[in-house]
Amino acid sequence: MNDRRLAEQVRIVGSGLLGASIGLGLTKVGVDVVLDDVSASARRLAVDYGAGRAAGPDDNPGLIVVSVPPEATPEVVARELASYPEALVTDVASVKGAPLARLRELGADLSRYLGTHPMAGRERGGPTSARSDLFIGRPWILAGHDDITYRRAAPIEDMILDLGALPIEMTVADHDRAVALVSHAPQVVASLFAARLANGRDGDLRLAGQGVRDLTRIAASDPGLWTQILEANAAPVTEVLRELQTDLATVIAALEDPEAPGASRTIAETIATGNTGVMRLPGKHGQDRTFSRVVVQVEDRPGEIARLLTDIGDEGVNLEDIRVEHSPGAQLGFVEVSVLPEKAAPLSSALQTRGWIVGEAE
Amino acid sequence: MNDRRLAEQVRIVGSGLLGASIGLGLTKVGVDVVLDDVSASARRLAVDYGAGRAAGPDDNPGLIVVSVPPEATPEVVARELASYPEALVTDVASVKGAPLARLRELGADLSRYLGTHPMAGRERGGPTSARSDLFIGRPWILAGHDDITYRRAAPIEDMILDLGALPIEMTVADHDRAVALVSHAPQVVASLFAARLANGRDGDLRLAGQGVRDLTRIAASDPGLWTQILEANAAPVTEVLRELQTDLATVIAALEDPEAPGASRTIAETIATGNTGVMRLPGKHGQDRTFSRVVVQVEDRPGEIARLLTDIGDEGVNLEDIRVEHSPGAQLGFVEVSVLPEKAAPLSSALQTRGWIVGEAE
Repeated sequence: MNDRRLAEQVRIVGSGLLGASIGLGLTKVGVDVVLDDVSASARRLAVDYGAGRAAGPDDNPGLIVVSVPPEATPEVVARELASYPEALVTDVASVKGAPLARLRELGADLSRYLGTHPMAGRERGGPTSARSDLFIGRPWILAGHDDITYRRAAPIEDMILDLGALPIEMTVADHDRAVALVSHAPQVVASLFAARLANGRDGDLRLAGQGVRDLTRIAASDPGLWTQILEANAAPVTEVLRELQTDLATVIAALEDPEAPGASRTIAETIATGNTGVMRLPGKHGQDRTFSRVVVQVEDRPGEIARLLTDIGDEGVNLEDIRVEHSPGAQLGFVEVSVLPEKAAPLSSALQTRGWIVGEAE
Repeated sequence: MNDRRLAEQVRIVGSGLLGASIGLGLTKVGVDVVLDDVSASARRLAVDYGAGRAAGPDDNPGLIVVSVPPEATPEVVARELASYPEALVTDVASVKGAPLARLRELGADLSRYLGTHPMAGRERGGPTSARSDLFIGRPWILAGHDDITYRRAAPIEDMILDLGALPIEMTVADHDRAVALVSHAPQVVASLFAARLANGRDGDLRLAGQGVRDLTRIAASDPGLWTQILEANAAPVTEVLRELQTDLATVIAALEDPEAPGASRTIAETIATGNTGVMRLPGKHGQDRTFSRVVVQVEDRPGEIARLLTDIGDEGVNLEDIRVEHSPGAQLGFVEVSVLPEKAAPLSSALQTRGWIVGEAE
């Protein structure tokens, strides 16, 4: 409790997943949190969950966190800046440029505002999913601009550190371009491809494996929230999608006439450039290390995967990743574990000695 | 050994991952397997691995399995049909229409040929990855046509059953349309999006989370093999990609002018239709059941995940799926386990009682 950095009272406006999780996390380290929400019942729920106490007339917040839907964010930030003329205000919307531009239009006091964006499982939704540990170890972007001083913004970074997250400073434009590439455009692409499945025949979908499942996993996201996000970051997202459109047209042309000169090369380069791109994604702990995979057959009953992982732990091998593969129609499956490359062969032998059926995947 | 269905000698042509795995699996149940490969060293390697014995002049195969790269498949099938005039011939290429059409052109005896396609981890590549259990529980398509009788084709189905796979009969056209939708077009889309990352800035990629990682996972596939597959199934793949192209143009137009009448609706419907599509993917064991997810915080050291899964097993709860989430820069992570909906709440409480930090994800 005494390790906390934040000294001031924090007012949280909006008690959804992010607002309630911030409230829970700050309350846990001893910060005085007051909660407000346009919905009195949502506020009561968050208070009951322990995310803070209800806002009242005697509040004296030093820091205000606006955690409302993206399209409402600038107006609520402007209102808070006006209502609490001494307070520093931040928000947690996943787009930063459009709200800042709107605040300028509204004539808001930007010397007391700095937007942020916690990179934490937003798509999971719902205030009842709030957790005090939601932000631990996650990047949390501070979207810098020139109207606020470094010193004035300090409590926001204190809050991020108190919540266990990793503050990263980026310009507003850099942030919006980055999330367009790694989050917003991927959402559109996953949704567009999943739409193809919506029209597919049942018999065709029966052949679906892990590849198309992974490709479309995020297509399950909330349409209302994502419409707001995509509209608010439309220009950078459109830029990524236009590049995709160009390459898609090129590959379609090649596939329409695969015998044409250069067509094979176009197709091969499409796959090869994709190889390069996927290798650039940071691995665990931000390292670019590649892991080896070991595939083990397991029966489909309680405790089997645990027994496997206990055996792996007994061998002193740390799991870098794990994936369960389903066998449609069969009462067994495969567990694919990723380990450091030098551990793969000894682990494989050790597991076979312990009676597991093992194949080394790569 | 005595449960096997296949009685005849099986000749396997091509000793890559699939050929060697078929050889291992059939040898294991006591089938007499002879192996051939244009590469003498590849054949020796497969023989050393126990996938069968080397082909010789006295062989008398009843069934021949051609397991060579897609573009070489029809010519090799035709040659085998001619060289062994009593034998039934099949292949395992992931496209079925183009090879069949080419065999007709070549005047091959189609009364002794039926193509198949095992839906097993082909993208993992390499003969040294061969496993006798590669096909257990996996769908294996028999691509039916009208020139071969049901009785004549029976040994192929026997082989599939001997390997523990699940035979599924489809027409050639249905097969090619289905794999275009659930496998080939997804490969193109993942590669095209991953190509965007190839040009992204390092700082942008630092914000990449699980979403874009899942979207692009299959983009790591082999360019040479995939060029052959995509060219061989170009028409059905192009059809899916053209639909995608139309929808992509629509969503780009909406994002270019989000204030225009109907733009928001277009964007929202894109995400909503994606919701519908992803829900249609068959779940584990082909069921459409949705699972609940429980998220547990784990420290990054050997045995922690095992200890968690042991606790879950002790509670008698069966894992439907598991996902490890990385926390960039932090020495801890989150394990997300999927369980039957009615098990989520009791499991969550039980794990908290056992000292785990738990949040229910949905």
